[in-house]
Amino acid sequence: MSEIEEVATISQAQSNDETVGRFAYVGLERAIHEKARLGLLTSLISHPSGLLFNDLKELCALTDGNLSRHLKVLQEAGLVEVWKGFNQNRPQTLCRVTVNGRRRFLEYLSVLEKVVADAAEAAELSAP
Amino acid sequence: MSEIEEVATISQAQSNDETVGRFAYVGLERAIHEKARLGLLTSLISHPSGLLFNDLKELCALTDGNLSRHLKVLQEAGLVEVWKGFNQNRPQTLCRVTVNGRRRFLEYLSVLEKVVADAAEAAELSAP
Repeated sequence: MSEIEEVATISQAQSNDETVGRFAYVGLERAIHEKARLGLLTSLISHPSGLLFNDLKELCALTDGNLSRHLKVLQEAGLVEVWKGFNQNRPQTLCRVTVNGRRRFLEYLSVLEKVVADAAEAAELSAP
Repeated sequence: MSEIEEVATISQAQSNDETVGRFAYVGLERAIHEKARLGLLTSLISHPSGLLFNDLKELCALTDGNLSRHLKVLQEAGLVEVWKGFNQNRPQTLCRVTVNGRRRFLEYLSVLEKVVADAAEAAELSAP
């Protein structure tokens, strides 16, 4: 194999792994990926029967306003359902992940696992 | 152990793992976590000597405008450095991750690994 052929082969091998959009991570759904919502969904997934607004607020260290805003985004995206009710005459809000939300979160998670693996590999290969 | 004590013990055991801010993920630095910038940094980490603007654009499937915008955020956060130069009289832009950027990306990555582990565990425990 001539030197030119060799370079061409190496270049081809690299380009297979370096394709257009190699690092685009299309599956990182924006409604889920935002930092606060990622925490909200993880807590809701670990409590499939739902969490009260105040418990969710504490677990995710959010203010009332921020939690309401993010819940609205999650609700509009069909990831979470929000229930209003009363307990001893006091209004309560119950938040629960939907079946569809659970499925989409698991899909998101598999992309996130790929990102972590990619990044860890890249960091290791380029270690000083 | 009385029933009340038992409930109190269980409740305490749960609250140890269910502390305030348990799912706040403070270490997910916003400048890095945004989907497009996460892809940009991963490609730059895997090319420590830098990437030309156009190569980065293709790898991350971004438009000129979006890439410029995200590079500006990364540059202002001290994560990436941008160099202007010429190759055969044509202007070129070289983008490179900074030493500080590499360190912060690795810190971010360790939090992201924790998120993935948390979420995977939560999903497994709550599997229907």
